[in-house]
Amino acid sequence: MSASISGIFPALTTPFEKGDLSESQLKSNIERFEKIRLSGYLVLGSTGESVLMNDGERLKAIETVRASASEGKTIIAGTGMQSTRGTIEFTNLAAGVGADYALVITPYYFKKQMTAQTLENYYCEVAEKSRIPILMYNVPKFTGLDLPIKAIISLTDHPNIAGLKDSSGNIALLTELKKSCPTDFVILQGAGSVLFSSLMLGAQGGILALSNFAPAETVEIFQMVNAGDLERAREIQMRLITLNEKIVNTFGVPGIKCALDLVGFFGGDPRPPLQAVDAEIKGTIEHLIEDAGLRGRPGPRPTGRFKASKDEA
Amino acid sequence: MSASISGIFPALTTPFEKGDLSESQLKSNIERFEKIRLSGYLVLGSTGESVLMNDGERLKAIETVRASASEGKTIIAGTGMQSTRGTIEFTNLAAGVGADYALVITPYYFKKQMTAQTLENYYCEVAEKSRIPILMYNVPKFTGLDLPIKAIISLTDHPNIAGLKDSSGNIALLTELKKSCPTDFVILQGAGSVLFSSLMLGAQGGILALSNFAPAETVEIFQMVNAGDLERAREIQMRLITLNEKIVNTFGVPGIKCALDLVGFFGGDPRPPLQAVDAEIKGTIEHLIEDAGLRGRPGPRPTGRFKASKDEA
Amino acid sequence: MSASISGIFPALTTPFEKGDLSESQLKSNIERFEKIRLSGYLVLGSTGESVLMNDGERLKAIETVRASASEGKTIIAGTGMQSTRGTIEFTNLAAGVGADYALVITPYYFKKQMTAQTLENYYCEVAEKSRIPILMYNVPKFTGLDLPIKAIISLTDHPNIAGLKDSSGNIALLTELKKSCPTDFVILQGAGSVLFSSLMLGAQGGILALSNFAPAETVEIFQMVNAGDLERAREIQMRLITLNEKIVNTFGVPGIKCALDLVGFFGGDPRPPLQAVDAEIKGTIEHLIEDAGLRGRPGPRPTGRFKASKDEA
Amino acid sequence: MSASISGIFPALTTPFEKGDLSESQLKSNIERFEKIRLSGYLVLGSTGESVLMNDGERLKAIETVRASASEGKTIIAGTGMQSTRGTIEFTNLAAGVGADYALVITPYYFKKQMTAQTLENYYCEVAEKSRIPILMYNVPKFTGLDLPIKAIISLTDHPNIAGLKDSSGNIALLTELKKSCPTDFVILQGAGSVLFSSLMLGAQGGILALSNFAPAETVEIFQMVNAGDLERAREIQMRLITLNEKIVNTFGVPGIKCALDLVGFFGGDPRPPLQAVDAEIKGTIEHLIEDAGLRGRPGPRPTGRFKASKDEA
Repeated sequence: MSASISGIFPALTTPFEKGDLSESQLKSNIERFEKIRLSGYLVLGSTGESVLMNDGERLKAIETVRASASEGKTIIAGTGMQSTRGTIEFTNLAAGVGADYALVITPYYFKKQMTAQTLENYYCEVAEKSRIPILMYNVPKFTGLDLPIKAIISLTDHPNIAGLKDSSGNIALLTELKKSCPTDFVILQGAGSVLFSSLMLGAQGGILALSNFAPAETVEIFQMVNAGDLERAREIQMRLITLNEKIVNTFGVPGIKCALDLVGFFGGDPRPPLQAVDAEIKGTIEHLIEDAGLRGRPGPRPTGRFKASKDEA
Repeated sequence: MSASISGIFPALTTPFEKGDLSESQLKSNIERFEKIRLSGYLVLGSTGESVLMNDGERLKAIETVRASASEGKTIIAGTGMQSTRGTIEFTNLAAGVGADYALVITPYYFKKQMTAQTLENYYCEVAEKSRIPILMYNVPKFTGLDLPIKAIISLTDHPNIAGLKDSSGNIALLTELKKSCPTDFVILQGAGSVLFSSLMLGAQGGILALSNFAPAETVEIFQMVNAGDLERAREIQMRLITLNEKIVNTFGVPGIKCALDLVGFFGGDPRPPLQAVDAEIKGTIEHLIEDAGLRGRPGPRPTGRFKASKDEA
Repeated sequence: MSASISGIFPALTTPFEKGDLSESQLKSNIERFEKIRLSGYLVLGSTGESVLMNDGERLKAIETVRASASEGKTIIAGTGMQSTRGTIEFTNLAAGVGADYALVITPYYFKKQMTAQTLENYYCEVAEKSRIPILMYNVPKFTGLDLPIKAIISLTDHPNIAGLKDSSGNIALLTELKKSCPTDFVILQGAGSVLFSSLMLGAQGGILALSNFAPAETVEIFQMVNAGDLERAREIQMRLITLNEKIVNTFGVPGIKCALDLVGFFGGDPRPPLQAVDAEIKGTIEHLIEDAGLRGRPGPRPTGRFKASKDEA
Repeated sequence: MSASISGIFPALTTPFEKGDLSESQLKSNIERFEKIRLSGYLVLGSTGESVLMNDGERLKAIETVRASASEGKTIIAGTGMQSTRGTIEFTNLAAGVGADYALVITPYYFKKQMTAQTLENYYCEVAEKSRIPILMYNVPKFTGLDLPIKAIISLTDHPNIAGLKDSSGNIALLTELKKSCPTDFVILQGAGSVLFSSLMLGAQGGILALSNFAPAETVEIFQMVNAGDLERAREIQMRLITLNEKIVNTFGVPGIKCALDLVGFFGGDPRPPLQAVDAEIKGTIEHLIEDAGLRGRPGPRPTGRFKASKDEA
C-alpha cells in the first residue's frame, strides 16, 4: 500500500455506454492515462458521477481501475455516504476490491446539524473502522457546507486519517492548514484553477477533474514547481485557467466528458438527469481546447462520438 | 388508491433501536397516530432520515407503515434518488410494498446543471415510468436548490404528476402557483410555520415534520380553516410557531425525535452522523412543549427514554 | 402627530427630470394618490432611490410630499444612514420638514459586526435622540442582512420605537413577531406579494412599492380583510402576484417607474447607475399590467413619456 | 502624479477622538508609517469607515494624509458613492485635495440591477468625468456583489481606468484577470491572506487592512517575492495568516483598531454603530500579535490606551 500521497490524480469520469457502466472504456481510458506520470487515480469522485451509480457499479469501477492501472499507482476511491454506517461499510468493500485510500465527503444532507463537533465525530468513527486510510473531502459547491478548519486540525493526528482533499478553492484556508497541520498531513487541491498557488504553499498535489483532459499539463505544473521552474508552472496554469473555469466549473460533468471525447479519451454521455452538452457548448469547449493548445493525447483514439476528427495525429 | 390528496400528513420519523430500524416502534407510533384525523403518512421524507438508510430498510419502513395504517389512509413514500434510473427503480419497488404516491425530491448534487429544463425532463421521465402518481418535492434548505416555478407549471398537466410538496416556506411562490396551476394540481405545504397562510391561499394540506409532535393541532388548523373558524386556526398556528422554528428548523431531526419522546411517541436516537440532542437542548424542547400546551398525547406511553417522567398521565 | 399607523402606504418613487429631482412631478403624483384611501406616504425608501440622492434633495422631497398631501396623511421618511450620528442628524432634519415617522434601515455595510446586540444598541440610541418615533426596517434583499428577531423583540417596548417594516417576505418571522410583540407594536409588510397573508396574521398594514402602480388594489386588499371579505381580498392578491414578483422583485426601481408611466402617474427615468428598462422589459410590463386589469388610474395623465398611448381613458 | 502603481498600501483606519475625526492622530500614524517602505496610502477605504463619515470629514482625511505623507507616496482615496453623479462629484473634490487615484467601489444597493453592462457603463462614465485615474474596487464581503470578470476585462483599455483592487480573495479570478488583461493594467490584492499567492501570479501589489498593523511584514513579502526569496515570503505569509483571518476578517474594523493600539499606532474606537472589541477579543488579539512576533513598531509609542493613558497630547 501507500505510505504517503503526492502528485497529480485525475478525478476520473465514469464511462457509460447505453446507460450502463462501460468497463472496457474505463479500462481503455486508464491505459491512455498510464502513459502520463500521474500518481494514481480517484475513482468515484464527484466527477465520477458516483451519486448516480449503485453499489455494484461502484465496486466494479474500482476493480476495473485497479486492474487497469500499473502497480505503483495509488487508487483512491470516493466512499462517503450520508450515514456513518453506510460510509464504513462501503469503504471496507472498496478496500476489498483494491482501493488504497478512501476519499470521504462531508455528509451534507442535514446541513444545520453538521457542526464541527459532529463532523469530527463522524470522521473519527469512520477512520477507526476503516481498513484503509481516509482522506477527508471538502467540496462546498456540491455539498453547500464548509468543513470547519477546527474540525480538520483536530483530526490531523489520527493515525488512519491521511489528509484532506479541499475543493473549496479557498487559498486562505489552505494557507492556514499548511501552517497548522503536521507536515505529513496530506493536503491535495481539488480545484484545478488554483493548483499552482496550492503547490507553492506546500500542498502535496492535486486530485483534479481538470486532469482528465489536461493530464500532462497538470503533471507538468507539479513537476515544474518541484523543479523550481516557477515561470513555466505559472504559464501552464494561466493557459489552463479559462478551460477549468468554463469546462469544470460552469459546464460540469457533461462538459468534462465532452472535453475528454475531444482530446482522445472516451467521455460519452453522463447519466440522467445530467444531460450531454448541446451543440453550442460543445463548440465553446472545442474552441477552449484549441486555444489552450492541449496536447496530452497519448495516441489516436480509434472510435467514439467524435471519431475520425481533427484531433487525432 | 387515491384520486386526490388533501389534509395533514406527518412526515414520519424512522425509529431506530440500537442503530437498527425498529418496525415495532414504527408500528406503535402509527397506532397512536391513527387516533387522530390525519389523511395519511409520509414515510422516508427528510425527517425520516431516508438518506441514512439502505434500500432494504426503506422498503421495510413503507411496508410497516402500510400494514399499520388503516385502509383509508394515503401512504406517500419518499423515493427520489440522485439518478433518474435510481428514482424510477425505487419508486416502483415502493409501489410494490404499498406506497400510494411517490414524493420525489429534486436531484441536487450537481446543482449548477439542474436547470429548469433538466428538472422538467427528470420529472417527466420519472412520471412516465412510475407505477404510482408522483409529487414533486422542493426543499431548498436541504438541497441548496430551488425548483423553478417555470418547471413546476410546465408539469402540472402531466397525468401522473399529482402535485408538489413545497418546503421553501415561500408564500409568494405558493401564491403564484395557486394562481397558475389547475385547481386539481395538489400543493402541500412542507413548512409547518406557514400552514395557516398556505391553507388560506388554497393549499390542499400539509406534509409536516411538525405533525409528528403536534398532530392533533395541525389537523385542527386544517379543520378550522375549512370550517371558517379562522380565528381559532390562527391562534393555533401562533401557538405552534416557536415550536416549529426551534424544534424543526433549528434542532432538526434530533430535536423532533426528542419532542416525540416527550409527547408520548417513540422518538429515540437519530442515526449517526446525526446525534441525539444534548441536555440543554432537551430542556429547551421540554419548555417549548409545555409552553405550547401540547396535547395530542393519545394515551400514556409505557416505556422509553423519558419513561415514568412528568409527561405521562 | 400620530398615535398609531395602519393601512397602506406607497413606497414612493422619486421623480427625476433631466437627472434632477422634480418637485412638480412629485407633487402631481401625490395629487393623484390623494384620490385613493391611502394612509400616507413613505418618502425616501429603497424604491425612492434615497441612496442616490444628496441630503438637500432628500429634505426637499419630504417637504414636497408633506405639502402636497392632505393633513390626515401620515408621512414616513426613510432616514437611516450607516452611522449612528448620521442617522440621528438626518432624522431630526426630516422631522423638521414634516416627517411624522422615521423609517430606519439596519446599517449594513459592516455586516459581520452587525450582531443582534449592536443593532439593538443602534436602534436604542437613534430612538433616544430622535424627535419623531421610528420604525425599524428589515430589507435583506438590499442589505444582505437579517435583523434578528431577538433584537426586534427586545425593542418593542421602547417608547419611541413604533414598529417595524419587514420586507423579508418571511411569513414565519412575521408570525413569530405577532405572537411575541405587544399588540400596539406596529408591523407593516414591505413585500407586496404577501400582503394578504400578513394582514390575516395581524399585520397593521403595508408600505409597498406595489402600491405605486396598484394603489387602489392594495388598499382594497386591506379594506376587504378588515371587512371580512377574504375571498375578494385573496382574489386581488392573486391578481397582483405576478406583477409584483416581476416588476418589483425582478425589474426593480426601473420597472416600477415604467409601470407608473403606464398607469398614468409620472415614473420617468431612474438615476444612474440605474438605467431605464429596455423595450423588451417595457413590453413585458405593459402585458402584465393589462393582464392584471389594473385600474387605479384616477384620471388621464396629460403628458409624459408614454403620452397619447392606449392607457388613457 | 503617478504613471503606475505597485507595492504595498495600507488601507488606513480613520482615527476618531471623542467621536470626531482626529487629524492629529491620523498625521501621527502617517509619520510612523513613513519609516516603512510603503508605496502610499489608501484613505477612505472600507477599513477607513468611510461610510460612517460625512463629506467634509472625508475631504479633511485625504488632505491630512496628503500633507503628512512624503512626496513620493501615492495617495489613493475611496470615492465611490451609490450614484454615478455622487461618485463623480466626490472624486473630483478628492482630486482637489490631493488624491492621486480614486478607488471606486461597485455600487451595491440595487444588487439585482447591477448587471455586467450596468457596471461597465458606470465605470465608463465615472472614468470619463474624473480628473484622476480610477481603480475599480470589488469587495463582495461588504457589497454582496461580484464585479463580473466580463465587465472588468471590457474596461482594461480605458485610458483613465488604471486597474482594480480585488478583495474577493478569489485566486482563480485573479489568475483569469492576469491572463486576460494588458500587463499595464494594475491588479492590487485587497485580501491580506492571499498576498503571497497574488504576487506570485503577477499582481502588482496590495491595498491591505493587514498592512495597518503588519506594515513592515507585508512590505517584506512584496520585496522578497521581487527578490526571488520565495521561501522567506511564504514564511511571512504563513506567519500572518491567522492574524489576518481573525483580526481583519472576523473582528473587522474594531479588531484592526485594537491591533493598531497594541503595536504602537493610534487605533482608538470605531464610530457607532461599530463598537470597540470587548476584553475577550482584545485578549485574543494580543495573543495573536505576540504569536506572530509582530515587529513593525517603528519606535516606542509613549502612551496609549493600553499603557498609561488614552491619547497623547
